[in-house]
Amino acid sequence: MHPAAIAKVVGILLTLFSGSMLPPAGIGLLYGDGAVQPFLIAFLVLLGLGLALWLPCRRTPAELRVRDGFLVVVLFWSVLGATGAVPLMLAERPHLDLVNAVFESVSGLTTTGATVLTGIEELPRAVRFYRQQLQWLGGLGIVVVALAVLPMLGVGGMQLYRAETPGPMKDTKLTPRLAETAKALWYIYLGLTAACALAYRLAGMDWFDAVGHAFSTVAIGGFSTYDASIGYFDSTAVELVAVVFMLLAGMNFALHFGAVRRRSLRVYAADPEVRAYLGILAASAAVSVLFLYASGTFDRFPDALHHGVFQAVSIGTTTGFTTHEYFTWPGFLPVMLILTSFVGGCAGSTGGGMKVIRWLLLYHQGRREILRLIHPAAMVPVKVGGRVLPESVMGAVWGFFAVYVVTFAVLMLALMATGLDQVSAFSAVAATLNNLGPGLGEVGAHFGTVGDAGKWILILAMLLGRLEIFTFLVVITPAFWRR
Amino acid sequence: MHPAAIAKVVGILLTLFSGSMLPPAGIGLLYGDGAVQPFLIAFLVLLGLGLALWLPCRRTPAELRVRDGFLVVVLFWSVLGATGAVPLMLAERPHLDLVNAVFESVSGLTTTGATVLTGIEELPRAVRFYRQQLQWLGGLGIVVVALAVLPMLGVGGMQLYRAETPGPMKDTKLTPRLAETAKALWYIYLGLTAACALAYRLAGMDWFDAVGHAFSTVAIGGFSTYDASIGYFDSTAVELVAVVFMLLAGMNFALHFGAVRRRSLRVYAADPEVRAYLGILAASAAVSVLFLYASGTFDRFPDALHHGVFQAVSIGTTTGFTTHEYFTWPGFLPVMLILTSFVGGCAGSTGGGMKVIRWLLLYHQGRREILRLIHPAAMVPVKVGGRVLPESVMGAVWGFFAVYVVTFAVLMLALMATGLDQVSAFSAVAATLNNLGPGLGEVGAHFGTVGDAGKWILILAMLLGRLEIFTFLVVITPAFWRR
Ligand SMILES: [K+]
Ligand SMILES: [K+]
Repeated sequence: MHPAAIAKVVGILLTLFSGSMLPPAGIGLLYGDGAVQPFLIAFLVLLGLGLALWLPCRRTPAELRVRDGFLVVVLFWSVLGATGAVPLMLAERPHLDLVNAVFESVSGLTTTGATVLTGIEELPRAVRFYRQQLQWLGGLGIVVVALAVLPMLGVGGMQLYRAETPGPMKDTKLTPRLAETAKALWYIYLGLTAACALAYRLAGMDWFDAVGHAFSTVAIGGFSTYDASIGYFDSTAVELVAVVFMLLAGMNFALHFGAVRRRSLRVYAADPEVRAYLGILAASAAVSVLFLYASGTFDRFPDALHHGVFQAVSIGTTTGFTTHEYFTWPGFLPVMLILTSFVGGCAGSTGGGMKVIRWLLLYHQGRREILRLIHPAAMVPVKVGGRVLPESVMGAVWGFFAVYVVTFAVLMLALMATGLDQVSAFSAVAATLNNLGPGLGEVGAHFGTVGDAGKWILILAMLLGRLEIFTFLVVITPAFWRR
Repeated sequence: MHPAAIAKVVGILLTLFSGSMLPPAGIGLLYGDGAVQPFLIAFLVLLGLGLALWLPCRRTPAELRVRDGFLVVVLFWSVLGATGAVPLMLAERPHLDLVNAVFESVSGLTTTGATVLTGIEELPRAVRFYRQQLQWLGGLGIVVVALAVLPMLGVGGMQLYRAETPGPMKDTKLTPRLAETAKALWYIYLGLTAACALAYRLAGMDWFDAVGHAFSTVAIGGFSTYDASIGYFDSTAVELVAVVFMLLAGMNFALHFGAVRRRSLRVYAADPEVRAYLGILAASAAVSVLFLYASGTFDRFPDALHHGVFQAVSIGTTTGFTTHEYFTWPGFLPVMLILTSFVGGCAGSTGGGMKVIRWLLLYHQGRREILRLIHPAAMVPVKVGGRVLPESVMGAVWGFFAVYVVTFAVLMLALMATGLDQVSAFSAVAATLNNLGPGLGEVGAHFGTVGDAGKWILILAMLLGRLEIFTFLVVITPAFWRR
């Protein structure tokens, strides 16, 4: 990709992104509790920066080839993640330094939802709104990227749905197809957010909290306008709304699209990934509820029930909302919940983790390998949803799994080398690489006490998770830059 | 497989194995410190049991088909592991109960080397010798099984070396080929053991310790006749002998065979797996030495050097000898060392872990996946040692990796559910599944304090590791038992 074309893309991204500083400024004016000025300055800085990059290159041809998509995706999360930190550094409260502001911004935009802040309810409304809005924009970006860009690039799990037409698409033009798909997804995303905000309002939140939490629910983000997260509201109605919309947001948005167009819920029932997704969450919730009750963590069964179900869904979908200090729960439960976040949401959802479809394929392929040992001469194809998967797709899934596990181990060791203990390091990497949010031990409630070096490592982990690792690896490969 | 044929195989195995009770009885007589009687009783019990199974079925056809190999391998480790516990239960010291005796016996025979015992130096010589001999017999079994049986079955990593002739071998006869290969391997194994014992003797051990430690070194077992393991001798010469023979035992025994036959060391240099194996151990040793010195764990550089190198090789090869309480070393070092045991020895060695060749293939395939994303139309074959690997072999390697990781997570959760903390559970499963031996935290020095349920889980982990998981999975699959 030509440097001028890169500058142009970054310029356009920044110019558009600068507009996102205005709603928080408006909120600040509305509530009159400060932090209007930092957002206006940030708006001007980002706009200026964006135009300074865009305008000199505006005559560079706009057509991007499919291969350029890798770089655009990496730039989207890294450039916006970095510049999204500007208002958090400028604001009087929280007045974060560079590493903390970038951590919070990247955590928001990648919909991880890990925070370095405490006393969130005492911050100006503009800042509280901005954090939620970052997640919502990040979620929108994910859906568009996951459903319109990544399948063309051959990463992200969604290509599994289009396995019948993989072929060489190297020189196909990216822009027109992207625009068309993005528009449909935008309507669905907006509709889901509006419904979620209304439901939260009806469940008892005020409009500020309802919209803010709708933003971070639909994005599977997990940021809250309160330290105590959803637990602040202490309301079964609120928890129920959260569970329903977390479940919806963790499904493939292509299914929502299909359901709306055909006015039928049958698309969900017919999808093997959604069935596996709901099955895994149900199993995890059942184990949680039974263990919480049996271990006496909650004396009343209804308490074990609603905390157990909420936390299993919140962590299994990688949302990361909490109603209770789950990291203090006994025995193996917190670790089991953290492990479910490695499964995560469906491909094409705003969820993190490795995605359900990949685990489904690993299961089918694992069974196939055993049968192949028993009957070496037999041909056993791997089928999902009645379709046979080509070996190349299987190779990509295995490769992703191995690279994910190795990346996890390397990041965990690096984090321990900065001084974190093993339990905190394990959960911190899981919480960021899976774009989950909360961890265990030292990072159970927030990430404020992690050292600077550790925070940079976790920022990288959040980006790697959101870029499905391979997008990042491709861009740092010398062969990508040749020709 | 016919029940009579199974009974016959178990009968032969037990009859042969009963003979292994006589050398310890002889040692007991020689040193006159007790425990002669338990071994004589165990000899008679096992011999009687073996003949009772063998004789009634002696007319059952002896020919085994390749597919029966799965069951024979599973029976070898499980039946011998269980009955090897008999003398440990009969002896006045240590007088173990069922779970502890089976743990110690399976740990010995699978060459894991995790122990439930303390005060080993105060036990009768017969028992101390028996533990070392269990490892040696287990190591011999591994080499024979890994090089002669598993490749025909298509598991274990060694089939990668014979990728050119995989084909359907379902009805090939197992026995003749096995006998021929086994004989050659037996000579190499015996020669290596003799050389190692002599070297230990020259380095200052008495003959009892020299032979005992040669047994557990060549088997990559890690049992010692002292609680303090190799650290007891406090001798650089002893450590050097151990390092050299651990390195040799961690290499593919087919290479030793080739080197002896051709009277040339060139076979080692030409093998990509050995090069990777030595490279990984050198890197791990370098990091260990530097970190031990830089962190001030050892004030003198020579101390950091010999402890660092020894422990990196001992854990990297999955031997599990110790010269120092490495689990008390600071920061990320113990966890890094435990993670190197997941790589483990070469295929066809007595080492545990996933085996170097698999990691080498994962690395090559990972690179290939990235290149395939950059050049979707290009065909990029995976080559190791100049040979192109078929996709089916790659699938088997990926499948193994995924099943290994999932098995690890499930066993770790199960162990935590019995009450172990996360760090101890993590390292206990790594130490047993990788057939390594020592862990971290509660299981750093020994496994005596783990509960009974936990010990049964770890016994399963040791067997799964030694059976390369898939051998076990095949035997519990209903399809295996049909027809
Ligand atoms: K999240
Ligand atoms: K071992």
